[in-house]
Amino acid sequence: MSRKHVKRTTHDARRTTNIAVLASGNGSNFEAIVGAIKRGYIKKTCVKLLITDKEKAYVRVRAERLGITQLYINPREYNTGGAFDKKLIQVLKKEKIGLVVLAGYMRILTPVFVKKFKNKVINIHPALLPAFKGARAIGDAYRYGVKITGVTVHFVDECIDHGPIIAQKPLPVKKGESLSGLERRIHRAEHTLYPLVIKKISEGKVKVRNRHVQVG
Amino acid sequence: MSRKHVKRTTHDARRTTNIAVLASGNGSNFEAIVGAIKRGYIKKTCVKLLITDKEKAYVRVRAERLGITQLYINPREYNTGGAFDKKLIQVLKKEKIGLVVLAGYMRILTPVFVKKFKNKVINIHPALLPAFKGARAIGDAYRYGVKITGVTVHFVDECIDHGPIIAQKPLPVKKGESLSGLERRIHRAEHTLYPLVIKKISEGKVKVRNRHVQVG
Repeated sequence: MSRKHVKRTTHDARRTTNIAVLASGNGSNFEAIVGAIKRGYIKKTCVKLLITDKEKAYVRVRAERLGITQLYINPREYNTGGAFDKKLIQVLKKEKIGLVVLAGYMRILTPVFVKKFKNKVINIHPALLPAFKGARAIGDAYRYGVKITGVTVHFVDECIDHGPIIAQKPLPVKKGESLSGLERRIHRAEHTLYPLVIKKISEGKVKVRNRHVQVG
Repeated sequence: MSRKHVKRTTHDARRTTNIAVLASGNGSNFEAIVGAIKRGYIKKTCVKLLITDKEKAYVRVRAERLGITQLYINPREYNTGGAFDKKLIQVLKKEKIGLVVLAGYMRILTPVFVKKFKNKVINIHPALLPAFKGARAIGDAYRYGVKITGVTVHFVDECIDHGPIIAQKPLPVKKGESLSGLERRIHRAEHTLYPLVIKKISEGKVKVRNRHVQVG
């Protein structure tokens, strides 16, 4: 069996998982994750750091309130995405981060970053990937007229909204539902699914083989 | 309100719906539909005709057994898709067909045909559209590693696997499931969803407004 085909557990369950959350906006997923750890739903896991690329992101107010260390990295101080991500890697290494959680992070990670943290970066997307990639997924699905949409948590690879899928939750679009009503339900589903996936990863129950993810 | 925005019921529930099924292969959906009518699940509906473009399609054996009139149209006798579809239109008009049901029909309908039968042609697709369009949807979804796939019934428009969605049913991919196991479950879901949609159409409960389909 070639090395390529060996299943890899993404995580060592015996160790505490140090998480960094990367966010650019509101940060409701960030808060859901911190809450799940605080109430003991996710064990042996610590959100060591919130990193944001937006000075005025509301997620910073949440971090302040929740007592989570935060770091604002100003993209203007870096000429290229590569330089920005190099700074990011430096911080993550220093803090011994084992899992990078994207929560509304609006910058595209460079291939160098993604390779360095292969199967250590996860993202949540408000649609059933590969349908409705991109930044306007909920509205796009709504306008398309789908009857079923949902939420996807996936590992991040070099292509946008493309890496191996860890978990998906389907949601029916209700009769006569407004876009904002659908958005609310999608976000609520995110706040359950994301902590569940992080729990499974921290317990060493997530195995990756090429594009196929087994969750124990 | 412009005419474009008026909701249209696709069907007059007072009349009997004459159906033509177009199929190129096995025909298990064809049989599921005929069965649903025979046992009274779908009322005031009649499968008047099976039309196939394949001389040796197994669906013809089923039609024979079920006592449904069948017509084989040999594509070689028509120079173009347009000529073939013209013949099709002629037959459908003559038989007073109100609903054209594609069931594994492997020819692409011409825009002329689709316009003539706007919101009168439906198709079933073994994935949650718009994900995994095309002829290998189940395998494509399986290889992609999705956790949720499903079945879609939609109106046929000028673009492939694209028309307004009438109904979708999500199916989780089970842990360690084989492709053939998934295929079996998808097909079983089709045999329930397709008759349900035809029942709703025949009862006049399906309304279309642009891309949005309301099922009462």
